[in-house]
Amino acid sequence: MSDKYQSFSQSPLGKLLVKNLGLPAPMKLERYAEGAPLVDGVVALGGRGRLAESLGGILSQLGVESTDAPAEGSRLKGLVFDATGLTSSDRLVALRDFFTPLMRSLATCPRVVVLGTPPELLEGGERVAQRALEGFTRSLGKEIGRGGTVQLVYVAEGAEASVASTLGFLLSPKSAYVSGQVVRIGATGSTDAPAVTDWTRPLAGKVALVTGASRGIGEQIARVLHRDGATVVGVDVPQAADGLVELMNELDGDWLTLDITAKDAPQRIAQHLKDKHGGVDVVVHNAGITRDKKLANMSEDRWESVIAVNLTAPERISRELLDQGVVNAHGSIVGVASIAGIAGNVGQTNYAASKAGVIGLVDSLKGELTDGITVNAVAPGFIITQMTAAVPFVTREVGQRLNAMSQGGLPVDVAETVAWYADPASSAVNGNVVRVCGQMMLGA
Amino acid sequence: MSDKYQSFSQSPLGKLLVKNLGLPAPMKLERYAEGAPLVDGVVALGGRGRLAESLGGILSQLGVESTDAPAEGSRLKGLVFDATGLTSSDRLVALRDFFTPLMRSLATCPRVVVLGTPPELLEGGERVAQRALEGFTRSLGKEIGRGGTVQLVYVAEGAEASVASTLGFLLSPKSAYVSGQVVRIGATGSTDAPAVTDWTRPLAGKVALVTGASRGIGEQIARVLHRDGATVVGVDVPQAADGLVELMNELDGDWLTLDITAKDAPQRIAQHLKDKHGGVDVVVHNAGITRDKKLANMSEDRWESVIAVNLTAPERISRELLDQGVVNAHGSIVGVASIAGIAGNVGQTNYAASKAGVIGLVDSLKGELTDGITVNAVAPGFIITQMTAAVPFVTREVGQRLNAMSQGGLPVDVAETVAWYADPASSAVNGNVVRVCGQMMLGA
Repeated sequence: MSDKYQSFSQSPLGKLLVKNLGLPAPMKLERYAEGAPLVDGVVALGGRGRLAESLGGILSQLGVESTDAPAEGSRLKGLVFDATGLTSSDRLVALRDFFTPLMRSLATCPRVVVLGTPPELLEGGERVAQRALEGFTRSLGKEIGRGGTVQLVYVAEGAEASVASTLGFLLSPKSAYVSGQVVRIGATGSTDAPAVTDWTRPLAGKVALVTGASRGIGEQIARVLHRDGATVVGVDVPQAADGLVELMNELDGDWLTLDITAKDAPQRIAQHLKDKHGGVDVVVHNAGITRDKKLANMSEDRWESVIAVNLTAPERISRELLDQGVVNAHGSIVGVASIAGIAGNVGQTNYAASKAGVIGLVDSLKGELTDGITVNAVAPGFIITQMTAAVPFVTREVGQRLNAMSQGGLPVDVAETVAWYADPASSAVNGNVVRVCGQMMLGA
Repeated sequence: MSDKYQSFSQSPLGKLLVKNLGLPAPMKLERYAEGAPLVDGVVALGGRGRLAESLGGILSQLGVESTDAPAEGSRLKGLVFDATGLTSSDRLVALRDFFTPLMRSLATCPRVVVLGTPPELLEGGERVAQRALEGFTRSLGKEIGRGGTVQLVYVAEGAEASVASTLGFLLSPKSAYVSGQVVRIGATGSTDAPAVTDWTRPLAGKVALVTGASRGIGEQIARVLHRDGATVVGVDVPQAADGLVELMNELDGDWLTLDITAKDAPQRIAQHLKDKHGGVDVVVHNAGITRDKKLANMSEDRWESVIAVNLTAPERISRELLDQGVVNAHGSIVGVASIAGIAGNVGQTNYAASKAGVIGLVDSLKGELTDGITVNAVAPGFIITQMTAAVPFVTREVGQRLNAMSQGGLPVDVAETVAWYADPASSAVNGNVVRVCGQMMLGA
């Protein structure tokens, strides 16, 4: 599962070849290690708007050092720009005026966050200017290099105090493989969130259900939610029981083996969570399958099994848990979509329909949830797992390099993103679909 | 400007190499010729929903032959499926049941259109199922091959009678380079539109303003709007006056030379249109510039000139024309965005911000327009012009092949899309951003 090209490209001979042939030079991405500070360096703040004044205080609560006036020659680990004050297109030049002089002062794997107001909540020229920010951040993500990430975070009026968990995630190595994304805070649902108390264990005392938890991305999600303090209830099919039980024992968790497409599965899950845990705080619909064929050769069985596992089951389970009131206040439901669900893919009319449907599930629930419960999805790009290890070399190489990081992501990158959604301090982060893709080129 | 690789790949030797090396095999795309029928073949209809019953009649008004029961072994030029009846995810299998048996009966450059209901107007499981359609159509667009196109058209309730101009465009060779797109009809603004009278000259008696009209894509837009019956008023900078005057004389049009970023430009344009034409029906903001640099090296001048021409000028001109009531009922405003404005691009923080802002302009106007006036944008991908001819060979080759058609588009492809928006019968087509990109892989 290691990236041999990346190791080679960082050897003396590799560096020489990469430079002379113009090959991709994937940077070794920094990732979060338990016990480390969130940000290993100083973050420079800029811009004038609704958020600027409180940013320093919010970061300081997370143990992150920031400055309004970076010293000459200092190395900056992050840049945060409050663009909420840019109310017309001719004022966008403030972006250039802040960023251009600082671009050469960035440390490795730097983090850039631009804060704006959700355009759909604005009118006229202000809406235009705020929408323009997206072209800026997506371009900067593609050119920043050296493992850097760039995000646009739209914060609704009234949600200013609810940005801590999101800034903590996006400024830290937890978001190593998340770049070029647009996040909305408080645009739908709740605009306020419980304060961050202990950011190292935000899920202490919480219960997290994870489907498909026995291996791969599901296993990492279980591990990261456990690290953050949750009791994990792993779900998988009976055939995967051995791996599931072993993992849940390791994590002091609980398990349930069933086929999520069974008619009584939602009811059984709800009953189990009520009886043994008194409810659930985090629901991660991770289980998924592929049955690829071009549409000309697609059997009804291939179509129906993919839709049933990837889409209808998450719909029915979410509905049952919500209708029975099993999801606790400030809880979160997390779907797993896919780049294929956004861009489409050859041989995947069934899979892409199911994953686009997961985005539809987020959209359909985001407006009706109460008590600070949220629904969001992750959309993984090329994530290195046992499954992708079986992909032929050239296809895998091309797939891995078609992103701003020139490398595949790791299951932990998806898991960290899920953990950010799951944090009760993310109660105003609702209705988002964030790609975990190293800003992969593919899209729509 | 010809595509030498495409010609070569269709020669006997080229065909052999393409097949044995697995190279892209771009199909020669059929394009619309004046006087030809809209669709050269039979369209098969399927699905059961709000639209199914009226589709045959609508197509027949456009001179298009359709059938509910295609004869065994017949070659089909198009497939239209009414998916508005699919109210839950388990019913999506109806897509497979209709399309799979027909996929081998398609003629060259086939056209597929799936009709749905805008998900944002629905709730619950129906919203999920309708959103899932997008993964299906985008995947099918990538695998259909042979110059085929696949679109998803969301038709709001009440807008059923307003689909004619859109079906005519998407089923005809006018949409040769448009694929994998999602179009909304009646989702914002007006849900009804004037009936199609003469589809060959929908703009007879209408006045169309085109900025940057002297050459390239602007020239083609002027030519196609003229073909469709419009009196074209071309606008360009004084330096381009010779080309502009020559073209407008050829098209029996009118012209105005000015710098659209000048303070008095919106007022001068409005006055000219009122005095000489009694108003305007179509406004195409085509003029645009690039001044590429990475952000680290971006001068204030490069930033400001790009924003001023590409974004602030279209905003100010639109505002002035609307405020003065110069835009006639059933008129249309058309912006030109770009794939870079959607996906971002290295060296284009300024350009991508301006083009994302054009999408913001569409969003900001779409809800406030009355009298059947619409606002939409085109987002061109790799379009072959004199500008792209100067791009180095390898970069150009890669750029041209990174799409489902394995070839660049032509300026006329952008122009035909503008003409579809401009058609008074498209009065319910509002708030759209349609890519003209051969379903380019790049996106967000």
